[in-house]
Amino acid sequence: MNPSFLTSNGISFSLALGLGGLACAYVLIRQVLGSSAGNEKMAFIAKAVQEGAQAYLSRQMTAVAMIALPLAVGVYFIRGGAATAGFVIGAACSMLAGYIGMYVAVRANVRTAQAASVSSHAALKVAFNGGAVTGLLVVGLGLLSVAGFYAVMLKVTNGDTKAAIESLVGLALGSSLISVFARLGGGIYTKAADVGADLVGKIEQNLPEDDPRNPATIADNVGDNVGDCAGMAADVFETYAVSLIGGVLVGFLTVKDNAAALIYPFVLCGLSLIASVIGIAFVNFVKQKSATNALIGGVAVSGIISALLFKAVTGSMFGETLNVGGKVIPSSNLFWCAVVGLVLTVLVVWFTNYYTSTFHAPVRRIAKASETGHATNIIAGISVGHHSTVLPVLAIAGSIWCSYEWAGLYGISIAVVAMLSLSGIIISLDAFGPITDNAGGIAAMSGLPESVRKITDELDAVGNTMKAVTKGYAIASAGLAAMVLFGSYVEDLKASLPHLTSIPFDLSNPMVIIGMFIGGLLPYLFTAFSMDAVGSAAGAVVIEVRRQIKEKPGILTGADIPDYRQCVDIVTKAALSKMTVPALLPLIFVIGVAFMGKEALGGLLIGTIVTGLFVGIAMTSAGGAWDNAKKYVEEGNHGGKGSFAHQAAVTGDTVGDPYKDTSGPAVNPMIKVVNILAIVIIPIMVKYGFFH
Amino acid sequence: MNPSFLTSNGISFSLALGLGGLACAYVLIRQVLGSSAGNEKMAFIAKAVQEGAQAYLSRQMTAVAMIALPLAVGVYFIRGGAATAGFVIGAACSMLAGYIGMYVAVRANVRTAQAASVSSHAALKVAFNGGAVTGLLVVGLGLLSVAGFYAVMLKVTNGDTKAAIESLVGLALGSSLISVFARLGGGIYTKAADVGADLVGKIEQNLPEDDPRNPATIADNVGDNVGDCAGMAADVFETYAVSLIGGVLVGFLTVKDNAAALIYPFVLCGLSLIASVIGIAFVNFVKQKSATNALIGGVAVSGIISALLFKAVTGSMFGETLNVGGKVIPSSNLFWCAVVGLVLTVLVVWFTNYYTSTFHAPVRRIAKASETGHATNIIAGISVGHHSTVLPVLAIAGSIWCSYEWAGLYGISIAVVAMLSLSGIIISLDAFGPITDNAGGIAAMSGLPESVRKITDELDAVGNTMKAVTKGYAIASAGLAAMVLFGSYVEDLKASLPHLTSIPFDLSNPMVIIGMFIGGLLPYLFTAFSMDAVGSAAGAVVIEVRRQIKEKPGILTGADIPDYRQCVDIVTKAALSKMTVPALLPLIFVIGVAFMGKEALGGLLIGTIVTGLFVGIAMTSAGGAWDNAKKYVEEGNHGGKGSFAHQAAVTGDTVGDPYKDTSGPAVNPMIKVVNILAIVIIPIMVKYGFFH
Repeated sequence: MNPSFLTSNGISFSLALGLGGLACAYVLIRQVLGSSAGNEKMAFIAKAVQEGAQAYLSRQMTAVAMIALPLAVGVYFIRGGAATAGFVIGAACSMLAGYIGMYVAVRANVRTAQAASVSSHAALKVAFNGGAVTGLLVVGLGLLSVAGFYAVMLKVTNGDTKAAIESLVGLALGSSLISVFARLGGGIYTKAADVGADLVGKIEQNLPEDDPRNPATIADNVGDNVGDCAGMAADVFETYAVSLIGGVLVGFLTVKDNAAALIYPFVLCGLSLIASVIGIAFVNFVKQKSATNALIGGVAVSGIISALLFKAVTGSMFGETLNVGGKVIPSSNLFWCAVVGLVLTVLVVWFTNYYTSTFHAPVRRIAKASETGHATNIIAGISVGHHSTVLPVLAIAGSIWCSYEWAGLYGISIAVVAMLSLSGIIISLDAFGPITDNAGGIAAMSGLPESVRKITDELDAVGNTMKAVTKGYAIASAGLAAMVLFGSYVEDLKASLPHLTSIPFDLSNPMVIIGMFIGGLLPYLFTAFSMDAVGSAAGAVVIEVRRQIKEKPGILTGADIPDYRQCVDIVTKAALSKMTVPALLPLIFVIGVAFMGKEALGGLLIGTIVTGLFVGIAMTSAGGAWDNAKKYVEEGNHGGKGSFAHQAAVTGDTVGDPYKDTSGPAVNPMIKVVNILAIVIIPIMVKYGFFH
Repeated sequence: MNPSFLTSNGISFSLALGLGGLACAYVLIRQVLGSSAGNEKMAFIAKAVQEGAQAYLSRQMTAVAMIALPLAVGVYFIRGGAATAGFVIGAACSMLAGYIGMYVAVRANVRTAQAASVSSHAALKVAFNGGAVTGLLVVGLGLLSVAGFYAVMLKVTNGDTKAAIESLVGLALGSSLISVFARLGGGIYTKAADVGADLVGKIEQNLPEDDPRNPATIADNVGDNVGDCAGMAADVFETYAVSLIGGVLVGFLTVKDNAAALIYPFVLCGLSLIASVIGIAFVNFVKQKSATNALIGGVAVSGIISALLFKAVTGSMFGETLNVGGKVIPSSNLFWCAVVGLVLTVLVVWFTNYYTSTFHAPVRRIAKASETGHATNIIAGISVGHHSTVLPVLAIAGSIWCSYEWAGLYGISIAVVAMLSLSGIIISLDAFGPITDNAGGIAAMSGLPESVRKITDELDAVGNTMKAVTKGYAIASAGLAAMVLFGSYVEDLKASLPHLTSIPFDLSNPMVIIGMFIGGLLPYLFTAFSMDAVGSAAGAVVIEVRRQIKEKPGILTGADIPDYRQCVDIVTKAALSKMTVPALLPLIFVIGVAFMGKEALGGLLIGTIVTGLFVGIAMTSAGGAWDNAKKYVEEGNHGGKGSFAHQAAVTGDTVGDPYKDTSGPAVNPMIKVVNILAIVIIPIMVKYGFFH
């Protein structure tokens, strides 16, 4: 490969690979939809779930569009037409990624249930490929939209790189904003339904999970799709796009004499897409002893191939050395920064697995604490959550150190891009979880034989660990990506206020500290609102289910069919109405604090990143650990199902639900929306003299 | 009053007032000990509690001395003999404040029970005066030790102010370190006993609170004294002394041309001591309709008198203007900074009361959520904890803003001194809580008539709110005090590295960010360890109680007397062994990160303050809210005692126990120990070239 070739054709190269990714996704969709959808009863239930999910997502889109519209007008006034176009594209692609991912997931679920009546490996393949569609869609759409829009803008502006990159900031804001809504709306939906169904079904009426007599059970299954599939896809699309844009932006702001710096992030993403496709093929075609081995093997293959490809292009693109922020470094340093991103991925996955898997001490400690009751289970779980922040945060700190040493802020951005470039394969694992979960639900509700349920249960357990692990990955990458955005904020300020020789964000400046305190409370307020939303919506579900059972006692004996639609409706309304306030909090805080000056706003950004990282990790890990502690008890430990310890473990699992699936993960897009918004408003704040 | 008079005699003036405070405490001790101690059975139970508390505290002192000894040697090598003397004095006074406070409390409790058989007002007086002893002791000892040591050092060094102030830093470190141990050890003790007693007594055996048949009941009552009395007294002694020292240090470092700056903090503390004594007299002699009115009235009287006295001296001490950090400001600004401290106290008390009292929405929301079970109670409580951080943090941010605008870093330190100067009266309210709690326990165990228990229960409810409110005050003041210490760290660095024109702690410097991440995880790790300690020690109590009941079933019928001593012993050992690791964490982190440079260490300090403030407020408020939600249900709401909602509320209360009485409050001294230690090690890090 000719060095000048990749540097000058990197955009086209990544566009081609993005299209290739979408083509692979299309092949997988055909393959999934081509497998048998089972019998009539299964189709009936699957259809109910599909309709509920589709209906919710359409209403969510309408609701979000209503809010996005005035914001687009705001972006237009601050940043002009190009950025607004970017905003719309980012918002649309974020929604689209969620929508298509869910579309396939709600069809893959019933097919997985059917395949499970053939063999475990067949079921794994359908479920994994259903998830892989989302993975490929997210990265394909991400690469295509960012690279495509960038290429178009370069054309439109006759090669004005600065203008083209500035309009990318609009795209970043659009995707971030949508993903906050999608994460929150989906997260509130899924957990309100889940908690509500559990509280009244499992605890009051002693019904098993996914029992068709439970009026909330369809809502629960719909929730898996709109939260864990659509919400997650929008979230990762956003992190992917924002990291890529952050890399380009930082390359533009800090690497002055090497055009490759702007192209390198695109190339890394393109190469990783190839690696992800190979990883997906590995899972499909190389038979492994266990599902876990197959999935982890796929990630390992993708990671190693990515590293090799990165190695192959870095030197040829940059030549021997490059100048980063005034310092000359060997170009191989950039490769090592990319390796830092890959290693951080491995470390975070490993740490999260330690804190959330049934095979290690933390989860077992929670399970043991359940013996002495609900309260000790909760205390142990919260403590595990707090403990679980330590290693990932140290790993993130170490990554910042290495990559900054090697290549300054640009080095950190390359580490983030490399980390996120693995999204394709990682999301495949994550989306696999809700599909198998739903497959189990459909198997139970349609009365398939016990052996089918056993296979889906086993796959579901694997899916649970994968889900927890992916959340660790998502929050760690979000933290690192946010650091890059903060750096971009600082660099952009420098460029916008050229009369200032330096712009210190000094901790001795009380405005920085005040901003930091205010920023620090944002994740607290945000998670408080979202937990309240789950709590109150779940309460409404409980009341509705109690009402139905009271009015039609035949529901419990199977004589009457419950009115599933009512519960779906309640949760839909609750999710839509309760997502707005927390989703708008970042906007209000950023704009409010901006009037206190650039230093206060800078402090706010860091404050939000710092507490957000801890709150996010603590909540997602504790939630995952509680979930698996319950599973561990259900495996027959500490008294097993129905014991006193089991009741306590169910309480912990229920508390963990909004922790791990609503509040915790929604912190990721939130900390990025805060940082991007700060960058977006720089011009107007400078113009009117608030930043000076 | 002559201006030069107070400035030149301010130290003697405050020494005299400190002695006066101790004299008042002595009068109150005589008065409390002079009231009737009740009948023989009461004396027997009280004696068991006294012995347990005394025995624990003696062992804790020995254990802490063992750890303090090598640290004193370390201080000697880094800071020399004078600072080491300060270290020993600080450590000794912190222990002494805890010890005497507890000595009186364990004698006031039985006398309060006895007085309750006379009248509610008589009981209030004994309990309040028992608490006021601690309040006066804390401020008297604090003022006396700091001012006395400072005066002696000035004498010894022939008026070398710099050397004298530097040795005060040793005193600050000694008191902080001890109070971390006291808070942790006491906190683990009290909650392990409480949770253990509740889990097996209330939930398994259906015994009421403080039932003499519960083998853990004496340990539970001992815990109130070693945790809520001794631990709290050591903690507030530390905050008081450290704030005073911080004020003097900042005055020395930033106000160059006005000797009054060093004396003003002492004078403020002295004047507030007068105001506190008047407030205590108000509670004793001005009869009010309710106990709450009397107590809040006392605080109001103290606050207003303080403000008036501050107003009277400020102008006369400083003259018209003074030069703070190179900026000339009117001296009246300092008075307004002091007012900021008083107003912040009022605001924080108000906010905490809102989030933790049964009369407001948050607690009622938790109570209502209990209807749908344990999990929704917990979710609601955690959400209230997160919500409760918002207003106090905004108030703190506002206070920093105002006081910095008016008088720079010195202004913030004056606000903190003014806030803490009210400790005398505020601690009286706080210590009142455990005394009435114990009085109720003694009344129940010695079979006093129901009417007595009713009075102590009413007073106990008032005590609960006061306790929650004081914790808000403690953490807010700790946050602000820590900010002053961080400022001192920066100023001290500047003085120690005179060749540097400026020392930026810039957020764009990755070392600052890395330090901040590491600092941010300290409160998480610290609270994780302390919650684990409570959980595992409580588990040991549960097992012991189950064993006793199994071996001697007569315990439940009253035929056999349980072996109280065993439970006391278990909790004593657990508290002592489990306090060491978390208490040493701050030392390990500060010293470890110091080797990464002064910027990383600065980042660590701020990181710890930011997340510590949020973790501390969220935990103490959530704990208080859960406690009162249970009380609200027990008042007959949502089904009242014995209902499903009540069981859920008990779970919340139990989770809240370590939140509000172990982990949350221990964060206060921890964030200060981190900051002081950073100041202490500056010379050695500069000497060996790690700070350059």
